[in-house]
Amino acid sequence: MRPILCVPSARRAFYALNKCEVANQWSENPRLRFTFCSRRYASMDNHLLTLSNINENVKRMEYAVRGPLVIRAAQLEKELKSGKQLPFNEVIRANIGDCHAMNQQPLTYMRQVLAACTDTRLLENSEYPSDVKEKVKLLLSYCGGGSVGAYSDSTGVEIIRRHCAEYIERRDGIPSDYQNIVLTTGASEAVRAVLALINSTATDPLPTGVLIPIPQYPLYTATLAEYGMAAINYYLDESNQWALQMDELQRSINEAKGKCNPKALVVINPGNPTGSVLSLENIKNIIKFAKKENLMIIADEVYQHNIYAEGAKFYSFKKVMHEMGEKIELASMMSASKGYMGECGLRGGYCEFINLDADVKAMFFKMLSARLCSSILGQIAMDCVVRPPLPGEPSFEQHEKEKAEVLRSLKERAKLVADTFNSIPGMKSNVVAGAMYAFPELKLPEKAVQAAKEAKQAPDFFYAMNLLETTGICVVPGSGFGQIPGTYHFRTTILPQPENLQRMMDKLKKFHLDFMEKYK
Amino acid sequence: MRPILCVPSARRAFYALNKCEVANQWSENPRLRFTFCSRRYASMDNHLLTLSNINENVKRMEYAVRGPLVIRAAQLEKELKSGKQLPFNEVIRANIGDCHAMNQQPLTYMRQVLAACTDTRLLENSEYPSDVKEKVKLLLSYCGGGSVGAYSDSTGVEIIRRHCAEYIERRDGIPSDYQNIVLTTGASEAVRAVLALINSTATDPLPTGVLIPIPQYPLYTATLAEYGMAAINYYLDESNQWALQMDELQRSINEAKGKCNPKALVVINPGNPTGSVLSLENIKNIIKFAKKENLMIIADEVYQHNIYAEGAKFYSFKKVMHEMGEKIELASMMSASKGYMGECGLRGGYCEFINLDADVKAMFFKMLSARLCSSILGQIAMDCVVRPPLPGEPSFEQHEKEKAEVLRSLKERAKLVADTFNSIPGMKSNVVAGAMYAFPELKLPEKAVQAAKEAKQAPDFFYAMNLLETTGICVVPGSGFGQIPGTYHFRTTILPQPENLQRMMDKLKKFHLDFMEKYK
Repeated sequence: MRPILCVPSARRAFYALNKCEVANQWSENPRLRFTFCSRRYASMDNHLLTLSNINENVKRMEYAVRGPLVIRAAQLEKELKSGKQLPFNEVIRANIGDCHAMNQQPLTYMRQVLAACTDTRLLENSEYPSDVKEKVKLLLSYCGGGSVGAYSDSTGVEIIRRHCAEYIERRDGIPSDYQNIVLTTGASEAVRAVLALINSTATDPLPTGVLIPIPQYPLYTATLAEYGMAAINYYLDESNQWALQMDELQRSINEAKGKCNPKALVVINPGNPTGSVLSLENIKNIIKFAKKENLMIIADEVYQHNIYAEGAKFYSFKKVMHEMGEKIELASMMSASKGYMGECGLRGGYCEFINLDADVKAMFFKMLSARLCSSILGQIAMDCVVRPPLPGEPSFEQHEKEKAEVLRSLKERAKLVADTFNSIPGMKSNVVAGAMYAFPELKLPEKAVQAAKEAKQAPDFFYAMNLLETTGICVVPGSGFGQIPGTYHFRTTILPQPENLQRMMDKLKKFHLDFMEKYK
Repeated sequence: MRPILCVPSARRAFYALNKCEVANQWSENPRLRFTFCSRRYASMDNHLLTLSNINENVKRMEYAVRGPLVIRAAQLEKELKSGKQLPFNEVIRANIGDCHAMNQQPLTYMRQVLAACTDTRLLENSEYPSDVKEKVKLLLSYCGGGSVGAYSDSTGVEIIRRHCAEYIERRDGIPSDYQNIVLTTGASEAVRAVLALINSTATDPLPTGVLIPIPQYPLYTATLAEYGMAAINYYLDESNQWALQMDELQRSINEAKGKCNPKALVVINPGNPTGSVLSLENIKNIIKFAKKENLMIIADEVYQHNIYAEGAKFYSFKKVMHEMGEKIELASMMSASKGYMGECGLRGGYCEFINLDADVKAMFFKMLSARLCSSILGQIAMDCVVRPPLPGEPSFEQHEKEKAEVLRSLKERAKLVADTFNSIPGMKSNVVAGAMYAFPELKLPEKAVQAAKEAKQAPDFFYAMNLLETTGICVVPGSGFGQIPGTYHFRTTILPQPENLQRMMDKLKKFHLDFMEKYK
C-alpha cells in the first residue's frame, strides 16, 4: 500500500518522486498502515465528513502512549470490574508517566494552596498554615477580581511568571526575565505552540524540518504530522547510555537538506523514553552543532528534578549556552506534571524563551491570545513548584520531607527496573539515570517476528499486546517512539508503587521467559 | 501595501489574480496593515527566527478582544497603581466576557466541590455539606488513583461526560450518548480542534472554507487564519435584531464557491458580540440551508443560560434538527466560563458531536490524545454546571438563590446598557436579548473619520482608543469583530457590577457627546 503523504499537493509529487524518507517516516509504522487499510474505504455512507475529506495530517499523526494498547487495557479493566475471569486480577498501566494514577500522594502544601485559592473561606481554617494563607493572598491579589475564575493575561499571571524567573535564576545562577516566560497548559501546549510558530510549510517551497531524537516522546512526531512539518530523525546511541552523537546529528541534517528546511533541534533531557541524562560535554557539543547549522534549540527539560544515577547532574541548556558565551534562540519547557509533584491532571507548565527576536516574541504572544489563557489553578500548581516553602516557613519541613521521599523512592525504583531487565535473558536496559522510564531492548526470536508479521503487527507491538493479554501489564512498544529498524524495545514507566513494581517485574520476567520459550 | 496572503505558494498566485475576497478579508483591517508596515523589516539582526521566516498564518491572525487596546489598558492600570495622575482613577475592562474579573462572586457549591476534590482532607470538614462530599467521592472514584492530579482519558473523565449527556437530555428531551462528548479546555479548544479536523487546505486544490457570522467572536477568524483556512463572511441583519437572513447566507456561499471549498457553517447563539437570540424559525431555516449546501454546523452555544429578553428562548440546534427529522453533522460547544457561573479561569468546556461518522470521530479522538487531557479541575467545574445540586439536597437552596441572583442582575444590566445607548444621540443598540454583550452602532462625524485616517487607525479603533485614554473604559472596536464597511461599532460587556456599570454608562455618555462636539 502506498504511504499517505501529508504535504501540500504542489509538493506531493516531488516527495513521491524523491522517496523522501523524512516525510515518509511514519508510514513505516505497520500499525498506521493497518489502520488505513481497514478504514480508508469503510465510511461510504452519506456523511459530509468522511476519512477521505478530513485533514490528512490528522490521519497521519499517531500518539502511541495513548494508542490501541491503552484502549485495550481500558477494555480489560472494564471486563475485570464486571467480574469476567482473566489470567490476571489487575491492569498495571505502565504506559504513561502519570504519577498520581499510580498512587503517588500529592504534596500537602500544594494542595492546600490550591484549595484555599479556590474556596477562600479556607483562609479562616485553623488547620491551614500561615505560609499557605499568605501565598494564597499574594496570588489572588494578582488575579482578576481576586478570583481563580478570572482569565489571566494569555502569558499567565504576572506574579507566577516572576516566580518562574526567580526559580530559573536560583537554578542557573544567571538572570531570567519574567517577560520571556509564558505559562501554558502543561509543557505540551508550549511545544505545540513553538512548533506552530516556526512552521512555514504553507508558504515555503520546502516543509519546515525539526530534528528530533529517536527514540522520542511521540508528542513531537504527532504534532509535526498534524502541522504538515518534517521530522528529521537522529538516533540516540543506545550503546553509550543513549548519548547524542555529533556525527549522527550531522548525518541526519545532511540527509534532510534539500528535502526540507531545517529550523530547530529538539533535545529531551532527562530523556523520555530513554531515562538518560546528558553530560555537560554532550550539551556543549549540541549547542555548537545548533550554532553551526543555524538551528533553534527546543529543550524539553520537564524532568529536571528527576535525576537518580550516581554522578548524573542536570545542566540546563540556558546555563551551558550562557557559560559558552553563545547566543542561540532557545525555548526551554518545564511542567508541574513530572518531577516529585506529578500533578499531570492540573495541566500546569511554562516555557522560557532566550534570545528571541522581540517582534517574533510579540507574534508568539499574539498567537497565544486566541487561546485566552491556561488554567489558573494549573498556573498556581506551577507556582508551588517554582516557589516552594522556604526554610523557616511553617510548611517547609513537611514539604521537604514529602518531596525527598518521592525522589528517594523513584531512585530506588529506577534501579530495580533496570537491574531486573538486565537479569532477564534476551533483554537489556541502560541505566535509568533520570526521568521516569526504562526503554529496554528485546532480542526477539525469529519465530516471534514471523508470528507478528502474520498478525500484521510490528514485532514489539505483538510482544506488548501479548504481555497485556497475559499479565495485565500495559507498556508501549518501541515502534511508538521510534528505534533503529530491526531492533525492538518497549517503554515502561518506573511509577508503580514499590510493592506493585516488584510484582510487575516478577510477572514480566515470567511472561518474557515463557514467550521466548514459545517462539524459540 | 499588498496584503499578505496565507495560502500555500501554489495557490497564492491564483488568489492574487482573482482578488479573492475570502482570503483577503483581514487585510482590510488597518491595524493589521499597520503592524506589518512598521515591523516587517524591523528585525534584520542575526536572529534565526525573524518576521520574514516564521509562520505567515500566525502573522495574519488577530484577536481583537486582547489586542492593542487591551495592552494599553494594562499600561494605564500600571500607571494608576504607580501614582500617576490620569483623567480617571480606574480602568474599566469592558473588553472581555470575564465575569469574576468584574467581581461576580463564585458559586459556593462549585468552589466547595473543587476545593475538596483538591484537598481531600476537607471531606472531614464539618462546614462542607454532605452533597458536596458525595459528589467529590463520586468524581474522584473515576479519577486515576482517586486524584485530580492524574490524567484523564483524552476525552475526559467518564462520569463527567455521562453527566453532560444527562444534562443535554434534560435540556432537549432527546437522547444523548456520552461517547459523543469530549471535555475540553474551555469551548475554545473544542472550536479549534473541530476546525483543525475538517481542514483539508494542505491537500486540496482549494482552501477549506467556513461560513462565519459578521460580526463574529474573533476566535473564529484568528483560528481560520492560523490554520490557513478561508473565512466566508455572512452579515447578520442589524436592522432585524441581528437575525440571520437566508438570502445573505446564500450570497456569501455563492461568492465563495470556486475560491474555497465550503465545509462548515458557524452559528453563535446567543450571539457574541451581538447579544441576540435566534428564533426557532430562524434556526430551522439555517438547518435547511446547511442541508442544501452540504455544510456541517458548528453551534457555539456557550451562552445558553444567558437569556434576558421577554419572549426570547434558547433552542439548541440539536433539538431543532431532531424535531425536523434532519441528520446533519453538528458540533455543539458549551463552557463553564459563561452562564451564571462565569468560571473563565478554570478552563472547562465540552463539545457534543451529533451524526458524526464513526471513523471520523475516532480520528478526532486520536487528534485529542496528543494534548493528553484538559484540566481535571476544569472538567469538574463543568460537572457542577451540568449536574448541580438537586431539590432536597443540602446545597440546593443556596445554589439556586446564588444562580438566580446572578441571572437577575445580568438581565437588569442588559436593559440598562441598551437603554443608555439608545438615549445617546449618534448611538443605537439592538435589544441585548442574551449573552453578555452589546454591540451599538456609532454614527461618527466625517471629521472624526478623517482624524482617524490621519492617525492611521480605523475610525472605531480611534474612537475606542480616545474613550480609553479619556475615561479608562476599555471596549473593543467593531473592526475587531467585522462589520459592514463604512459602519462603526464597539462591543462592550454588560459585566461591571450594577453601581460600576451605571458610572461607566455616565462616563461613556459624557465622552461620546464631547467627542461628537469636538469633531462635528
